[in-house]
Amino acid sequence: MKIIQTPQEMSAFSAQMRRENKKIALVPTMGALHEGHLSLIDIAKKNSDITVVSIFVNPTQFGPNEDFSAYPRQLEEDAKACEGRGVDVVFAPLASSIYKKDASTCVVEEEISANLCGKSRPTHFRGVTTVVAILFNIVKPDVAVFGEKDAQQVSVIKRMVRDLFMDVEIIRAPLVRQENGLALSSRNKYLHGMQLETACRLSESLKVGKAMVEEGCRNIDRVKAAIVNSLAKSSRIRVIYVEIVDAETSLPVKELVPGKCRAAIAVWLDQTRLIDNMVL
Amino acid sequence: MKIIQTPQEMSAFSAQMRRENKKIALVPTMGALHEGHLSLIDIAKKNSDITVVSIFVNPTQFGPNEDFSAYPRQLEEDAKACEGRGVDVVFAPLASSIYKKDASTCVVEEEISANLCGKSRPTHFRGVTTVVAILFNIVKPDVAVFGEKDAQQVSVIKRMVRDLFMDVEIIRAPLVRQENGLALSSRNKYLHGMQLETACRLSESLKVGKAMVEEGCRNIDRVKAAIVNSLAKSSRIRVIYVEIVDAETSLPVKELVPGKCRAAIAVWLDQTRLIDNMVL
Repeated sequence: MKIIQTPQEMSAFSAQMRRENKKIALVPTMGALHEGHLSLIDIAKKNSDITVVSIFVNPTQFGPNEDFSAYPRQLEEDAKACEGRGVDVVFAPLASSIYKKDASTCVVEEEISANLCGKSRPTHFRGVTTVVAILFNIVKPDVAVFGEKDAQQVSVIKRMVRDLFMDVEIIRAPLVRQENGLALSSRNKYLHGMQLETACRLSESLKVGKAMVEEGCRNIDRVKAAIVNSLAKSSRIRVIYVEIVDAETSLPVKELVPGKCRAAIAVWLDQTRLIDNMVL
Repeated sequence: MKIIQTPQEMSAFSAQMRRENKKIALVPTMGALHEGHLSLIDIAKKNSDITVVSIFVNPTQFGPNEDFSAYPRQLEEDAKACEGRGVDVVFAPLASSIYKKDASTCVVEEEISANLCGKSRPTHFRGVTTVVAILFNIVKPDVAVFGEKDAQQVSVIKRMVRDLFMDVEIIRAPLVRQENGLALSSRNKYLHGMQLETACRLSESLKVGKAMVEEGCRNIDRVKAAIVNSLAKSSRIRVIYVEIVDAETSLPVKELVPGKCRAAIAVWLDQTRLIDNMVL
């Protein structure tokens, strides 16, 4: 497995692979890899000849009071995990090689990004779309794999790719949960002791919503209220949002159509911001 | 010469050319081709195996009260001119095939775009960067040629290409003037009779500025004032801006360095907005 640290070297490697008619898959990550990421790698490998995992804690997708400095960094461990899973290239650039001091260009998606996490993290998605566009231009993948844990992010990226005619197939990979239901996330590292149990409330509450729909409820407000009430069982949880959206686009829906809608939630658990979602 | 009207066909053609190791040059235009455009085509041909000219009057780079509907459209004549100059492909898509009704993504350059024309046309450059990003993704050129008549536009595009790691070489092609000094522009079609003579004031005023610098003047304010005074000789001209900027980046300068600075001007001549520039 190669570890590449400069955009120039990555770009040259990809150009060579493309000349050899190799199909390239990219799994963009911020590192701190868990089984969720590793499942994306498996999907990438099935859909390509060369699998590239980028590890880059992207400063522009963090707000001024968010956890950019605290975000877990463990490049050696991550590289080992990638190697163990058969990755061909880990691309781990320095922030200074991705963003010039006087960088002044960004890619902005303005509809899907305005909802859900975009409301409480107003500059987050422009950071995501910009860095993903940059990574696509450097790595030139045929396929890129994103996890459904960040369902809104996948919707935003699919919209960007469609609108700007980027020549990349986006694969939406299933969310991976622990046995107790907790959605895998690098930010789970912030949770300790009782917090880890409380965090299961998120998936529990989504299951409550899903059960209501399975039992025939089609009233969006009632489903939302049930999810909120379920979350409220823990006093440590403060709800940021609970929304029912289109499962594909993450845009608001007026009708609850089973299989086509997604419940998306974000909460504060003490000092940690957690998100989860489930197709209803 | 091929005329291609859909992004899908253009993209497939480019992919085929790249598989054959052909170097592709793109000349993005809004049509109404004049000798200025044709000089860009000549440069493109010298730098590639396949020359693509895109003809697309891009709605998103016109403001709400600008001349989008009036902008000259003459596809047949343009195609003939391209064929005569040895162009391989004219790419002339419909606006509806470039912009979906619910398109919500754009590429924004926020520093260079804020000056000069960006002040009076606040959404212009985001329209330009977005459509150029789209055209690059569809045509996948190795090289793209832009005319120095729109010097700020070239600076904005070079910044975008650098910031987003687009794999395209940008060639800045020299401005072409009529014998009387008037910079070639599709918008010159709006000018009639005396207006065509008055329009020569723009290049005359720039020559006044250039002569001052050649005679040793290094005072930016004095050079600007001389250009403004020269423009003011015609009562039909209303100055939008006269600025001395860095010749490469189009950003404001504090010192006037001969050969490294550019005088950039925009005026209204009756109802027509004209721009011109000259390296001092």
